[in-house]
Amino acid sequence: MFDLHPAFPATSESVGDLALCHVRLHGDARWPWLVLVPRVAGATELEHLSGAERGRLVEEIVQAGAATRAVGDALGCPVDKLNVGQLGNMTPQLHVHVIGRWTGDPAWPGPVWGHGTAVAFDADSLERALAAARASLAL
Amino acid sequence: MFDLHPAFPATSESVGDLALCHVRLHGDARWPWLVLVPRVAGATELEHLSGAERGRLVEEIVQAGAATRAVGDALGCPVDKLNVGQLGNMTPQLHVHVIGRWTGDPAWPGPVWGHGTAVAFDADSLERALAAARASLAL
Repeated sequence: MFDLHPAFPATSESVGDLALCHVRLHGDARWPWLVLVPRVAGATELEHLSGAERGRLVEEIVQAGAATRAVGDALGCPVDKLNVGQLGNMTPQLHVHVIGRWTGDPAWPGPVWGHGTAVAFDADSLERALAAARASLAL
Repeated sequence: MFDLHPAFPATSESVGDLALCHVRLHGDARWPWLVLVPRVAGATELEHLSGAERGRLVEEIVQAGAATRAVGDALGCPVDKLNVGQLGNMTPQLHVHVIGRWTGDPAWPGPVWGHGTAVAFDADSLERALAAARASLAL
């Protein structure tokens, strides 16, 4: 039985569900940033997915990359590099970050994780970001 | 024609070649850390690989995870979490980091990228790390 770790609702908004992953918009207006959570109970590492699930995951990462670019366009910060990370040092449930980056963004060229403090979305930007992500992912 | 970006030989040691990826041991003795470089000319994002190449890549990431655990054991720092990252903000050629982490490691629980300064391997540790990686990957 898959249950979403409570850290995700506390820090992000639901975008919807792809075939394998639950998709969320990370609640940090500094970057267009999606999080994929494979709906596989107990998984904390890629090795806990089946080969078919891993193949599905990497395709959903590519879809999320396109959606991240769409979110960046909707927010007025066009993406010119994608960063993908599967860490889980603080939230153990397997999840993959897909983050849109550009030269001169607030953490460029370093990683975004642990960089400063998240900036909340205003209501209008959040709505535009979610709409762009859902349209790109056909959700 | 695939050519390895010169940043890799400057910062890492060759482990060998899997079906898709050239594998390197990152030259930082603080963590067991492998780097996979798909041998696909011009690729800088996952979307530049074919679906078959992406499927192969994710399987090689899992293999590299097991090898990273073996390197950690050989170096006396057993791994209890894997971190996987595809960033490329500084070195554009598509590559994937597979890093072994443990509670209390030098950057725990933050990301390793950009954390402090790399510590060079001594010759004996480098030899043990390379041998463990190659044995695990059957190279």
